[in-house]
Amino acid sequence: MTPVQDAARVPSPDVYRAAALPDAVRVYEVGPRDGLQAEPHIVPTETKIEFCRSLVAAGVTNLELTSFVSPRWVPQLADAEDVMTQVNLPESVRRIVLAPNARGLDRALRSGASEIAVFVSATETFAQKNLGTSVAASLAMAETVVAGSTSAGVPTRGYVSMCFGDPWEGSVDPVRVADVAERLIQMGVGSLSLGDTIGVATPAHIHAVLDAVVERGIAVERIALHLHDTYGQALTNVYAGLTAGVAEFDSSAGGLGRCPYARGATGNLATEDLVWMLDGLGIETGIDLHALSDVSVWLAEQMGRPNTSAVVRALSAARADAIQNNSTLSPTH
Amino acid sequence: MTPVQDAARVPSPDVYRAAALPDAVRVYEVGPRDGLQAEPHIVPTETKIEFCRSLVAAGVTNLELTSFVSPRWVPQLADAEDVMTQVNLPESVRRIVLAPNARGLDRALRSGASEIAVFVSATETFAQKNLGTSVAASLAMAETVVAGSTSAGVPTRGYVSMCFGDPWEGSVDPVRVADVAERLIQMGVGSLSLGDTIGVATPAHIHAVLDAVVERGIAVERIALHLHDTYGQALTNVYAGLTAGVAEFDSSAGGLGRCPYARGATGNLATEDLVWMLDGLGIETGIDLHALSDVSVWLAEQMGRPNTSAVVRALSAARADAIQNNSTLSPTH
Repeated sequence: MTPVQDAARVPSPDVYRAAALPDAVRVYEVGPRDGLQAEPHIVPTETKIEFCRSLVAAGVTNLELTSFVSPRWVPQLADAEDVMTQVNLPESVRRIVLAPNARGLDRALRSGASEIAVFVSATETFAQKNLGTSVAASLAMAETVVAGSTSAGVPTRGYVSMCFGDPWEGSVDPVRVADVAERLIQMGVGSLSLGDTIGVATPAHIHAVLDAVVERGIAVERIALHLHDTYGQALTNVYAGLTAGVAEFDSSAGGLGRCPYARGATGNLATEDLVWMLDGLGIETGIDLHALSDVSVWLAEQMGRPNTSAVVRALSAARADAIQNNSTLSPTH
Repeated sequence: MTPVQDAARVPSPDVYRAAALPDAVRVYEVGPRDGLQAEPHIVPTETKIEFCRSLVAAGVTNLELTSFVSPRWVPQLADAEDVMTQVNLPESVRRIVLAPNARGLDRALRSGASEIAVFVSATETFAQKNLGTSVAASLAMAETVVAGSTSAGVPTRGYVSMCFGDPWEGSVDPVRVADVAERLIQMGVGSLSLGDTIGVATPAHIHAVLDAVVERGIAVERIALHLHDTYGQALTNVYAGLTAGVAEFDSSAGGLGRCPYARGATGNLATEDLVWMLDGLGIETGIDLHALSDVSVWLAEQMGRPNTSAVVRALSAARADAIQNNSTLSPTH
């Protein structure tokens, strides 16, 4: 790794490859959507646009920009049309937006998105509490959106929440996740994102759910993982997913966004922490970690809140140390 | 997992076992020593004693209580003799203390410790900056301590710092770590703790260093890992160690202690976050996670500082939610 004391550079991990892991991973960046939607303050449209452009400049090629859920529910993203109209990203970037229903789909298709994401729950209680509906009804709604998107030639992604545990129901049978996953694939989604919404999973649990889904004939290449860090398990679960062949992971620049089910607890996996590990494993992401970290620092300043990414904090401290060129360290051990 | 909404109980992970992992792990608790020594405030002796006793009551059986380094260097642990005299822990608990030299060893042996830890550096620059000496000289000093401890019938543990990266030297050759490890084993230490002092390692790097050490004829059963979370990698690296057969991991209750080499960055792996994963993997630790979390909450209150463990924060929030019995959740996705 690059020595910290070299003022011109900041640390990167040494590269040690592991056999049987993917050569490349798609980092699916949800900061502008999942991150900002969970933040208490509403970020100005100009800042969102700058954020999206900077993420792409840092190498992000899978970007979830916004959501066409009703502004009544998610006021933070009420400017979805404006963001999409003005952001002007290259066609080569996968530009995903959420659409919950036919009206949302209509807005999404007119916005120029290159991919539409739908969302369903693996558990009845979450479907009820969060979506005001049942699993079956939310699947039916998703089917409408997927059919409409497919007709328009726009691919879709199917999010499944509560795949590893539910705050009300407790344990979630992996078979239930597989049932929902199978329905989504049958209706035509291009890929799935299986979510550990409350962050309770551990490595073999990740494998058990993946096995149940793959057993339905769904290729692991079509599966992404959306892992929350509420219990500090997210990155370990990513590694478990990697060892099972998963090559797409959702994360949020700077760790933006909080889990609404555990007040005060951390939520999204920070993209920088994910990329540090992938860089160290020699897995291609296309992302410049230091450039990405700078984007997160900038956004945290815009939002007047601290950054929750360990890597961003460490790189910022290392840069400050290198600039100071002061290495007075107290003895340890 | 236990539903959050059950007010009488708080969450635990579902158990999913993985093949080829250890059945049991020794959680080596360094909070009272490594944690407290890095804290800016000096904790009263009575609080330290209560902390140690509470940790043992929660099931900790490998406890590093204090250090007999000169109080000039580590004023936070100047009360080492008092803590050891008054703490009164069962003989069944492995009670480890640090001793840097012959004088420290003398104090340590008289204190009633059941194990003595010595510490050396894998890199010259860290030995110089932190210990004011060379690798060779620190090995010679360690040999004196180990010989004295062994004569007294007290086993020893050899800590090696900077095994995965050094702030000044950058990359560290795994061969160098193996050289130091081999010397320690030859001089008679019972076990080794290989440290990622600056937290830069990733899973295959963990394997590379373990392979280099094991190649010297050192059984993996004699190897522990001391992983820092400065870059958010600690728990993932624990899992990597588990898959390579490591069965002892150092951690700090509530994530006490900070890495002094990256100001503002997180340091020790939180014991609760480690135990959540081990519980989820069905690996025995002997530790009651919820009791341990309560100890960390109590200590954080004593110290007037926030807790850095994701699990502790999540369990505290879940308990508050359960008590409120209020589940108004804003829609997501």
